[in-house]
Amino acid sequence: VISISAGNHAQGVAFAARVLGIRATVVMPQTASPTKVEATRDYGAEVILHGDVAAAFQKLRQLEKERSLHFVHPFDDPKVVSGQATLGMELVEDLPDLDAVVAGIGGGGLISGVAWAVKELRPVARVFGVEPEGADTMFRSRKEGKPVHLEHTNTIADGLAAPFAGELNYRLVERYVDGLYRVSDDEILAAMKLLLERCKTVAEAAGAAGLAALVAGKLPLPPGSRVCCVISGGNVGAGQLASLLRPSA
Amino acid sequence: VISISAGNHAQGVAFAARVLGIRATVVMPQTASPTKVEATRDYGAEVILHGDVAAAFQKLRQLEKERSLHFVHPFDDPKVVSGQATLGMELVEDLPDLDAVVAGIGGGGLISGVAWAVKELRPVARVFGVEPEGADTMFRSRKEGKPVHLEHTNTIADGLAAPFAGELNYRLVERYVDGLYRVSDDEILAAMKLLLERCKTVAEAAGAAGLAALVAGKLPLPPGSRVCCVISGGNVGAGQLASLLRPSA
Repeated sequence: VISISAGNHAQGVAFAARVLGIRATVVMPQTASPTKVEATRDYGAEVILHGDVAAAFQKLRQLEKERSLHFVHPFDDPKVVSGQATLGMELVEDLPDLDAVVAGIGGGGLISGVAWAVKELRPVARVFGVEPEGADTMFRSRKEGKPVHLEHTNTIADGLAAPFAGELNYRLVERYVDGLYRVSDDEILAAMKLLLERCKTVAEAAGAAGLAALVAGKLPLPPGSRVCCVISGGNVGAGQLASLLRPSA
Repeated sequence: VISISAGNHAQGVAFAARVLGIRATVVMPQTASPTKVEATRDYGAEVILHGDVAAAFQKLRQLEKERSLHFVHPFDDPKVVSGQATLGMELVEDLPDLDAVVAGIGGGGLISGVAWAVKELRPVARVFGVEPEGADTMFRSRKEGKPVHLEHTNTIADGLAAPFAGELNYRLVERYVDGLYRVSDDEILAAMKLLLERCKTVAEAAGAAGLAALVAGKLPLPPGSRVCCVISGGNVGAGQLASLLRPSA
């Protein structure tokens, strides 16, 4: 199989391939965090670093043909979305009186699966999606009434920096997600610090975006709401964490 | 009540006092980490910062008399040790086929309670205690055959920097702890990084000492051993974490 991701999807593909005993190739933009590259290689995948996200996609299409590989889309695929939906199912199972779920949005894989499952199983629960201000593909897509592509993305949350919203993901988000919100990099950093200091949990920037919107008071939640924030990744190296957390930051 | 601690005991006392609706005063050396001071105050305790550990102890004795307060010893007290023992009981309950337990040692409260419970409930399990090289009170006490006082301590693990071993703790350690090991600050830092990057868990230096000895290969454990490392604290602020994790470190 071949896939593309600067996010945690890369490790998911590498891990699944190892479990199934098949070979995985993952194309990543050259800006991918070294921690993610290393973790993906540690699971046994071949990692090819190539250009920016657009160039990496072209490289992927080329390799897919040349090597006759099966492409696993990082988000715009019913099976990938179904996999993410299992998280929503588990949430409702563990928290049957849940009022709201908040998750970050890159291409829309996670949010579309989670929202689909949560809304079908517990229609009264609300689902909110959160994007970095510098990579607000789904927010703009909703505004324009169709999935859009961004020319540039600019955010510390590399795991949410997909430059376009998936077609399937967009349709599911339109159907199931109650609100889309944007957070600044500073708001994301504040949520990362809160998770570190109070929850003793390491979240990467992408993983802290949902909590960032909650803590910043951006979500329309009545007092006393039972809210679940999906912390969707912790792939941040100690050195990178040190730079992010410098007291001046 | 009044107590003294530069470690997590301070928060424990403050929290317990709040639950019981009584007033707590905690004396801390001026070197206590701001995160711990703040957390202890957040639980409602009065925190008095005074000199080094020796001076803080004198201050505590003075306040105890002046204000007629009840002194809760941070480690050398049967009730405190019994409280720590509940951790050992839970470990054996959760991991009935445990081969070994590793924990850090400051004054010896945690290790003596945990070792007592684990060895009584599962005598075949081994218990190892780990100290920083710069605060090896229990190691020296065992060597000299009696609890010793250190003139100075020097370690990044402030939670383990008690300058003396408790009498009761020393006796329980002699009876129940199979081995005492020392780790360097660099070994502790490496364990903190491993916990952050691979377990997504924030441990303070004191909390990572046990794992540090394990990862450094210092513990006499046969391959395949089922080992539990007690991660006994995560009181480290984001700024402090950043300084500790600087890539040069």
